[in-house]
Amino acid sequence: MDVYEKSLALHEQLGGKIEITVRAPLETREDLSLAYTPGVARPCKEIEADYAKSFTLTRRGNVVAVVTDGSAVLGLGDIGAAAGMPVMEGKCALFKRFGGVDAVPICVDSRDVDEIVRTVHLISKSFGGINLEDISAPRCFEIEARLKELCDVPVFHDDQHGTAIVVAAAMLNAAKVTGRKPEEMRVVVNGAGSAGIAVSKLLRDIGFGELTVCDIGGILDPAGDINPAQRALALTVNRSGLRGSLADAVKGADAFVGVSAGRVLSGEMVATMAKGPVVFAMANPVPEITPEEALAAGAAVVGTGRSDYPNQINNLLAFPGIFKGALKCRAKAITEPMKHAAARALAALVPESELSPTNIIPDVFAPGVADAVAAAVIEANAREASS
Amino acid sequence: MDVYEKSLALHEQLGGKIEITVRAPLETREDLSLAYTPGVARPCKEIEADYAKSFTLTRRGNVVAVVTDGSAVLGLGDIGAAAGMPVMEGKCALFKRFGGVDAVPICVDSRDVDEIVRTVHLISKSFGGINLEDISAPRCFEIEARLKELCDVPVFHDDQHGTAIVVAAAMLNAAKVTGRKPEEMRVVVNGAGSAGIAVSKLLRDIGFGELTVCDIGGILDPAGDINPAQRALALTVNRSGLRGSLADAVKGADAFVGVSAGRVLSGEMVATMAKGPVVFAMANPVPEITPEEALAAGAAVVGTGRSDYPNQINNLLAFPGIFKGALKCRAKAITEPMKHAAARALAALVPESELSPTNIIPDVFAPGVADAVAAAVIEANAREASS
Repeated sequence: MDVYEKSLALHEQLGGKIEITVRAPLETREDLSLAYTPGVARPCKEIEADYAKSFTLTRRGNVVAVVTDGSAVLGLGDIGAAAGMPVMEGKCALFKRFGGVDAVPICVDSRDVDEIVRTVHLISKSFGGINLEDISAPRCFEIEARLKELCDVPVFHDDQHGTAIVVAAAMLNAAKVTGRKPEEMRVVVNGAGSAGIAVSKLLRDIGFGELTVCDIGGILDPAGDINPAQRALALTVNRSGLRGSLADAVKGADAFVGVSAGRVLSGEMVATMAKGPVVFAMANPVPEITPEEALAAGAAVVGTGRSDYPNQINNLLAFPGIFKGALKCRAKAITEPMKHAAARALAALVPESELSPTNIIPDVFAPGVADAVAAAVIEANAREASS
Repeated sequence: MDVYEKSLALHEQLGGKIEITVRAPLETREDLSLAYTPGVARPCKEIEADYAKSFTLTRRGNVVAVVTDGSAVLGLGDIGAAAGMPVMEGKCALFKRFGGVDAVPICVDSRDVDEIVRTVHLISKSFGGINLEDISAPRCFEIEARLKELCDVPVFHDDQHGTAIVVAAAMLNAAKVTGRKPEEMRVVVNGAGSAGIAVSKLLRDIGFGELTVCDIGGILDPAGDINPAQRALALTVNRSGLRGSLADAVKGADAFVGVSAGRVLSGEMVATMAKGPVVFAMANPVPEITPEEALAAGAAVVGTGRSDYPNQINNLLAFPGIFKGALKCRAKAITEPMKHAAARALAALVPESELSPTNIIPDVFAPGVADAVAAAVIEANAREASS
């Protein structure tokens, strides 16, 4: 049985990867009178009088909604709300296992951006945070932006920012390992979808020198036939005004980040990059180039999204700790400084003495990752609050 | 500390009465590849191809959303979505503890019926059932009716039907205990809100002879200033066309069911009822009449909503088993026959030999209640399907 068959068998056998468990005693009449009526009227009144207690007198303060519309599930595309549930449930299981964060899967059965925004906003008072997942670009940008404006809890699209944070952490360490200064590097990002746009912005803002962003039509040209989110990004990167194909883009570049599809990066192309380049080929399950080919073509550091190669660039390193921290300090949003702090904290988890071309980010099972990321997020939030 | 103070202390100490726990192994890379990417793509595709698998390959088949808009929480009235959460969380804890049903609290921050319906409908593919809770009448009737039409999972307003089912079970046994035939009884229901209307309909349909329904303005007069839900009910009950006050209504009546507010039933009024009447004074926490007064005035059987008197008429006897059964047989709705079957099964749980004026319904902690109710619901569903 391959991994897909085994996964189906597991899902058939389990009948659900998460469940609810009870934290309150419910064994006697007195128990019921405190956990439920009539006693429970009191905490209700307490919250009515002081909204902030919503987060401490109930589980709300530790619960994140994992929300999808099923429009971009994994590599399967638009499979719809119901079919997206196994991924959402899995995400919730990961939130709890790795971050101690309770997470509830919510599949919204609509493709209409207004409806999705309205629906999620109207249920947001049930949750301490909203993690958007597997929502297609460019709709995901508007949905996230509008929900951030409307909701008083953090809203975070993990496919965008979780990916960006882990890529940034890995790139910071890859720079170190190859003796480069981030501000002197030119990074090519291929794939201007939700992940690519977020990765490009974060690398740009965290201090990488130049970003050359490509999509199917080659290097993003602000005057070209690209969507508004891509145009907005294109106007702020690629200062040297490079034009052309991906092959043109990678010539002399220090690093390549693939968040695209298909085997689009050849060994010949890698050989034209700057000496000892960094190659993150993250298309899943078929990377833009195999690590073997990239290394043979001269790459100094190679990362993928896969667990069967070194340097797995996995969002799991970020989202549990991001939310654990944001929930702990009751942040109203996950801000840019918090994301930068998370990326740096992740990078710092690999001790200088252990940094190597095959060890640029922690393993997902390394102890303390979520706590370190959470601590960085909490600290960044505190700095912003006091500034 | 009284029960309210103790409840607040419990809520402060617990920080949430429910939590998520993980059912899938997540300890190794292989575990991740089966519970999450890439393996999880398979169950997604399975559901995309066969929607029914949504209920078996994920927890959906065992999860109920407990939904409120915070407009009628306990006796507190409209306290809003966030303040309703302690009750909703408590309800979820009860669902799990007593019915083995996973339940998620969803507080919808809107008073608009269209918005509430739309929101709940759009998230309904995440759940195996929807339990509406603490939504004010008469809005709750429209919300429930429209959601039943739109959703392909059961939608059930417990304040209406759970109350009705337990009252019906108790009344069937109270009839036995007082040597009455249901079809020869006249029952007064006081309080034509969500509970009162549902109680009246169920008692009418399950075979009680005549219903006299009252509200603040006295016996419901179809031509009077009452809302459409009350009018619709008024046209189908009170065949003898009685008019007047509650005092007029109870004269000669066999039973009184109070789902109202305030001490509106006096001993003198009970003394005018038929000999050895049945009095269910369920206003909480102040019953319409105390059991002591009712008994002193000649009541033969007395029930309340309180746990410190015999015959506690508590919805907890119904909703866990109702949903346990409906989810088990993947019923698309909780129908009238299923409710009647549940009421009769509840009544039958008190063996004939143990029936007495102070023992007309099971204790909430009696073993097997939810299973008996679930079995009755499943059987009723099967009968409907084959007819």
